[in-house]
Amino acid sequence: MADKIFRVNMTDLSTSIEDVPADWVEHGGRGLTSTIVAAEVPPTCHPLGPNNKLIFAPGLLSGTAASNSGRLSCGSKSPLTGTIKESNSGGTAAQRLAKMGCKALIIEGQPEGDSWYSLSLTPDGVTITKEEELIGKGNFTVLATVEKRFSGKIGVMSIGQGGEMLMRAANISVKDPDSHVRSLGRGGLGAVMGSKKIKFIALDAGDRKVEIADMDAFRAANKVFSKALVSHPVSQALATYGTNVLVNLINEAGGMPTKNFTTGQFAGHEKISGETMHDLIVERGGKPKHGCHPGCVIKCSQIYNDLKGNYLTSGFEYESIWAMGADCTVANLDKIAEMDHIMDDIGIDSIETAVAFGVAMEGGVLEFGDSNEMIRILTEEIARGTALGRVIGNGAGSVGKTYGVTRVPVVKNQAIPAYDPRAIKGIGITYATSTQGADHTIGYTIATEILGVGGTIDPLAKEGQVELSRNLQIATAAIDSTGMCLFIAFAALDDGACLPALVDMLNARFGINLTADDVTNLGKSILKTERAFNMAAGFTNLDDRLPEFFELEPIAPHNVVWDFTGEEIDAFWDF
Amino acid sequence: MADKIFRVNMTDLSTSIEDVPADWVEHGGRGLTSTIVAAEVPPTCHPLGPNNKLIFAPGLLSGTAASNSGRLSCGSKSPLTGTIKESNSGGTAAQRLAKMGCKALIIEGQPEGDSWYSLSLTPDGVTITKEEELIGKGNFTVLATVEKRFSGKIGVMSIGQGGEMLMRAANISVKDPDSHVRSLGRGGLGAVMGSKKIKFIALDAGDRKVEIADMDAFRAANKVFSKALVSHPVSQALATYGTNVLVNLINEAGGMPTKNFTTGQFAGHEKISGETMHDLIVERGGKPKHGCHPGCVIKCSQIYNDLKGNYLTSGFEYESIWAMGADCTVANLDKIAEMDHIMDDIGIDSIETAVAFGVAMEGGVLEFGDSNEMIRILTEEIARGTALGRVIGNGAGSVGKTYGVTRVPVVKNQAIPAYDPRAIKGIGITYATSTQGADHTIGYTIATEILGVGGTIDPLAKEGQVELSRNLQIATAAIDSTGMCLFIAFAALDDGACLPALVDMLNARFGINLTADDVTNLGKSILKTERAFNMAAGFTNLDDRLPEFFELEPIAPHNVVWDFTGEEIDAFWDF
Repeated sequence: MADKIFRVNMTDLSTSIEDVPADWVEHGGRGLTSTIVAAEVPPTCHPLGPNNKLIFAPGLLSGTAASNSGRLSCGSKSPLTGTIKESNSGGTAAQRLAKMGCKALIIEGQPEGDSWYSLSLTPDGVTITKEEELIGKGNFTVLATVEKRFSGKIGVMSIGQGGEMLMRAANISVKDPDSHVRSLGRGGLGAVMGSKKIKFIALDAGDRKVEIADMDAFRAANKVFSKALVSHPVSQALATYGTNVLVNLINEAGGMPTKNFTTGQFAGHEKISGETMHDLIVERGGKPKHGCHPGCVIKCSQIYNDLKGNYLTSGFEYESIWAMGADCTVANLDKIAEMDHIMDDIGIDSIETAVAFGVAMEGGVLEFGDSNEMIRILTEEIARGTALGRVIGNGAGSVGKTYGVTRVPVVKNQAIPAYDPRAIKGIGITYATSTQGADHTIGYTIATEILGVGGTIDPLAKEGQVELSRNLQIATAAIDSTGMCLFIAFAALDDGACLPALVDMLNARFGINLTADDVTNLGKSILKTERAFNMAAGFTNLDDRLPEFFELEPIAPHNVVWDFTGEEIDAFWDF
Repeated sequence: MADKIFRVNMTDLSTSIEDVPADWVEHGGRGLTSTIVAAEVPPTCHPLGPNNKLIFAPGLLSGTAASNSGRLSCGSKSPLTGTIKESNSGGTAAQRLAKMGCKALIIEGQPEGDSWYSLSLTPDGVTITKEEELIGKGNFTVLATVEKRFSGKIGVMSIGQGGEMLMRAANISVKDPDSHVRSLGRGGLGAVMGSKKIKFIALDAGDRKVEIADMDAFRAANKVFSKALVSHPVSQALATYGTNVLVNLINEAGGMPTKNFTTGQFAGHEKISGETMHDLIVERGGKPKHGCHPGCVIKCSQIYNDLKGNYLTSGFEYESIWAMGADCTVANLDKIAEMDHIMDDIGIDSIETAVAFGVAMEGGVLEFGDSNEMIRILTEEIARGTALGRVIGNGAGSVGKTYGVTRVPVVKNQAIPAYDPRAIKGIGITYATSTQGADHTIGYTIATEILGVGGTIDPLAKEGQVELSRNLQIATAAIDSTGMCLFIAFAALDDGACLPALVDMLNARFGINLTADDVTNLGKSILKTERAFNMAAGFTNLDDRLPEFFELEPIAPHNVVWDFTGEEIDAFWDF
């Protein structure tokens, strides 16, 4: 049976299952969510109003046995940035959606009144149910309760208090195989779900499976693909230390923004490094190696236990650890893990929220390094929706404006993560030109600038950075459409067998004949679709700029400023 | 002696007196502040950072005996809107500046460290002094203290706690002849002054006077001009009831936004009307008729006393009374006057702040109509800079984003005042196209739509509204350059002798030969200068739009929506 579009209208509480329009057939994941947003969302609408839509789409290979293909895309007009937005996540939801034949779930409209709802999806369609018990609850309670309510292996997507209260740092949590959460993290998509009064979405595919046009070819390609993934040295480092392997590397490069982006190295870096984390995890009986979705062969996630050996958090990423650690000068991994868990429960992006804390520290709201006060604010202010809690829960830009702080590291109002663009210049081009606000994943130049993947480039020099960011952004847009984890990119950049095998899998899955060029062109067209939406929403090339302070304030130890001209940045779009 | 530019650099605490560049000679007031901002402020700079400038300029006729010529313009890049900004005010400062030969005061840079300063200006230059005693104090304490410190008749401009805390609703207070305050109200200029760490500016012109090239011609023209002003019926109504004469008129028209713009008439309108106010003022021994600067012949201001006959507030305008009254559903003029006084003391715009309260009421922060809680929030939260206080003190847009409210009446993030654009459509064109965010004074179509001045037009019909707004915005930009109060426009529109007399006064003052066409062209060029700045700051025609809810929600009693297309609005700029 062909895949379908599942559509839910929250204004009149109606649902429908529709054929996939011809224009959308070749799309999946980010390519599909961005295509649908561009087609159906008025670019100037209020992101939390009835005219915005929330779209979930599994990738083109999600639900198959292809390694690392379990990513879920969620698209909308972002309440944080005002741009088009795609956020993607691991967990089990993409595979459930793909298996039930749901090419995309489109949620539109907005109910009047105060009632909350849940959705449950099966291959037969969508059921809308009033929800009372779980309103006001955090994600972990929601997950545990929803799992009890349904039988069988279900996928769950939910929002915590952050999304209910329409905070623009609110994310959407996605259940992972161990009933912990992964996050559709950035851009405030949890607030869009909250604006539609949906607390959770349960996904039951039953025993339905994804059809493969040519299973033999698919298996052969997947074998080559998997081998490329597991044999790449970066994959292996990720399996050992997680993404947090980066703390020491980025600190050494002098590009780890510290104390709200006032310097590029953190004295406490060893206390929060991947190496330290690995040893603590092993010592306390956690798991240093853990997959966020079935079929992952890299396993960059982990189970981080507390001092007593009890589960504390998982999916504990460098960018979150950096944000709470170096940016807020908290040199204590246990405190950071505790905050990570609390943010997962409230359902707020740990990058956006932690960078917001850094700005709040600069604004005098609390002291740098005061993790106890951060925890108090998380639990007593943000989770409860006090004024201060909402200011921080609305992100770094919100704190900056509320407290009159001028050193506010955001692009298009989304917090800049983990890599200082003055000292690692390629990532600055990505932050500036991203169609979605500052986002390292959208064109991860760190691969080449710091890790030497796909060649080498001097992070302190401007030469070649625009081209690097462009090539990676194009490739990433395509990868984000396949359902593949971005971490396949390391192998794809260095191992000549990897990308052809991925194309072979796409062809075998659908019985088509894509070439590598087709994939590149797909990436280009997605970027252009996204940019056209933003232009129609009122953005201009002047929004593709970093905040002024990066040009005015040199960062130690290299004492460099951001020195790209507007013209140089705008050349990014020459393709 | 020719007029000079007084320049203050707050980074190195240097001052200078400079000749007026040739390009600036013909400009005054708004034309001059906008010209200087366009010439010297990088359009994409942070409004609260070192690259923004704060510019004060008296009008071309300020300091002369010309009736109603005492307006002061203040220009900058606005921290509220991100656009260019000119706000103008009565009081005595414009006349002091003009008399001391200061064509414009330009304040640039930003000191490092926590010290605060004051400026004092004499014809000989500017003195910068450290200030400690008055930091943290409200405007009335500042005024009283500064008056004691200086001998003679001085002008004073100051900020309250709002400006010190960089709140984007913060205004700059200007001393009036009775040591009460008028306000450079809109756009957060008080925050710019605060960002430069200047608490107050004292102005002592000594006995210096403005030179007039042809005094006989000047006097003759002023006689004609004054007669036109005082004999216009709207001037007479203003003298009796103040601007608050509008409550009953706008309510009757169904265009008085009520309960955060959910309906167009306020049941409590009679309790807050100009007629009621007049009677209370007379009953309590106040003054129904009062000029905000020497030489005003209209005298729309008043002294409003409390129940015991003690001074409560002055300069008590319709738009403020509407905002606290109808928009927040407070049908109690004494409470409104009390809040008006508190806002003057804190130094925050009573339109922006009160509209922010309306949005906060919708967001559940407090109940509609709860003036006691409003007063508590003003004194205990805003004046003290708590998180809630800052959220409200940063304006209506800030509250909307913090609390996820979608019915947020702002354009370019500045609160829409007092006239609902669904029911009074011409003013909607002004709000949408204004170079400075929603602002009724920038093209006051109410004159024609409601008061029948300069012709008549159906406020519910679209026909002719774009042209009306365009003509008025052009004329207003010119009037704002002369130092004239906007209320000369009523006479200018209806009395053929008024405008030629104004032109004659300009010619007599400077010994030049302007024609009425020159004045119109001046207005056009100012608008284009301002718009070019905004475009260079990243604004587009899509920013010239009203919020989405005006299109989605009909307003009673006429049950009309905002129905101009983008193309129709954009035609405004065809000149």
